[in-house]
Amino acid sequence: MDFKTYYDNQRKLVEQFLKQRIAKKGISRVDEAMEYSLMAGGKRLRPILLMATAETLGKKGYNFLPVACGLEMIHTYSLIHDDLPCMDNDDYRRGRLTNHKVYGEAMALLAGDALLTLAFEVMLEQRNVKPEALIETVREMAMCAGNFGMVGGQVLDLEAENKQITAEELRKLHAGKTGALFIAAIRGGAHLAGASDQELRCLTKFADLLGLAFQITDDILDVTSTTEELGKPVGSDEKNHKSTYVSLYGLEAAKALAEKTCEEAMQCLEPFGDNAWALREITKLMCKRRS
Amino acid sequence: MDFKTYYDNQRKLVEQFLKQRIAKKGISRVDEAMEYSLMAGGKRLRPILLMATAETLGKKGYNFLPVACGLEMIHTYSLIHDDLPCMDNDDYRRGRLTNHKVYGEAMALLAGDALLTLAFEVMLEQRNVKPEALIETVREMAMCAGNFGMVGGQVLDLEAENKQITAEELRKLHAGKTGALFIAAIRGGAHLAGASDQELRCLTKFADLLGLAFQITDDILDVTSTTEELGKPVGSDEKNHKSTYVSLYGLEAAKALAEKTCEEAMQCLEPFGDNAWALREITKLMCKRRS
Repeated sequence: MDFKTYYDNQRKLVEQFLKQRIAKKGISRVDEAMEYSLMAGGKRLRPILLMATAETLGKKGYNFLPVACGLEMIHTYSLIHDDLPCMDNDDYRRGRLTNHKVYGEAMALLAGDALLTLAFEVMLEQRNVKPEALIETVREMAMCAGNFGMVGGQVLDLEAENKQITAEELRKLHAGKTGALFIAAIRGGAHLAGASDQELRCLTKFADLLGLAFQITDDILDVTSTTEELGKPVGSDEKNHKSTYVSLYGLEAAKALAEKTCEEAMQCLEPFGDNAWALREITKLMCKRRS
Repeated sequence: MDFKTYYDNQRKLVEQFLKQRIAKKGISRVDEAMEYSLMAGGKRLRPILLMATAETLGKKGYNFLPVACGLEMIHTYSLIHDDLPCMDNDDYRRGRLTNHKVYGEAMALLAGDALLTLAFEVMLEQRNVKPEALIETVREMAMCAGNFGMVGGQVLDLEAENKQITAEELRKLHAGKTGALFIAAIRGGAHLAGASDQELRCLTKFADLLGLAFQITDDILDVTSTTEELGKPVGSDEKNHKSTYVSLYGLEAAKALAEKTCEEAMQCLEPFGDNAWALREITKLMCKRRS
């Protein structure tokens, strides 16, 4: 199978699972606002990473759709809250109006809250995994998503606005803001697939480097892509006086750093041989992407 | 032991656990905002209910502090988000400035997000429980807190503003907004203590009635208490044109309904004999409270 077919198949599995799960309605109209953002497309990178990691360890990725899709819900809630007026105040996301532009601020706030909450409910619906392993996996997901990880990074990001920060501070900020959910995806897949300590160490290092490469590429795209390709306005980092890998190192050095980081990530996959095919292809895709 | 001593002891256990757990810092200043609201006092009713329910089934309540205190974190996050300008826009809570008044809107939003996330992390740290029972308990907590429960009820509440709603709609709204976390507390304690199906049914009915009694009492206090006693402005329901049990039935009928509901709740505890002592006392306290 070629990689494009593989990725499309995995994405369809994720779309299908999310669609079915979100069709189970609650007691209010918040469901509509949740569905609006959850089913707005996107690369579904985090759940696909989780499944590809399980496959790297010889397991079927689709067996872990509940945990994988819970992670996508966490990612989606973070986008809804990030777009709110008190945060980035964005009107568009993936070429569509943002949640609060359609449903109002209060509803968007609550839709985010409900998606984060549903994420944990769905993850705990995972079957065919040792209960102890599921508890450890979901506990770690929470750790990566909260004040130790993603939310912590978002706060560092807030505080870095209009301020020159050091390379070290930028690394820490992104390790939280974007890196932590990559770690959650890859370590989650590894835990669920019953990884050994040694395997877990290699994959954690891989996740860390992949997250870094992803972020540097993001910063590069903000100055080299077009608004059409990206689905959101380019040049926003400069406009918002944000420190980025490009503003810190310059464009060419940032490109070189992205490439080097990708190569190092690839090296972490060597022990897994052919089984790491999908993870390798995803890594290449992430470093070559135009959006 | 008299009940006041019992309640004070339980509250101290909760305070101590929360204080210790929140001292484990993340990567940013969001921890300070989280701690500000989490350690602002309050009755700690939900965790104490969870522990008292476990005791009703012959188990030690303090063994379940992680799950109990996770629930308190969910309650606290909901208050922070509820107070935000796009929601109730409140400046004071429990006699102190609200979170966003101290830390700003963006930080308060993220502090709420991080507390909700931490709640699940902490609940999954629970030990000395069968892993299957813990998974089921935490999954149900999420269900009670999200679009099926608390958040769903908050949305119904938003949509009921400035609108006359029926008694049935008011019941559904509050069953979500306040009732669901009482259900979570009591069913959580029951699951963790290994309740039988029959015990679970009785306690669920008790939780439902207790939540209702709590809400009717809240509505009554909004017209009969003083701002000093309540720690927040009285008369806010009428000012905000909210449908309440008082506006729907009148004060005297609301008082009678509260009393009848309390009695019915008490009846659900009969099968548990003396073991239900703490739950009975909590029920009495909740129906007699002045704040």
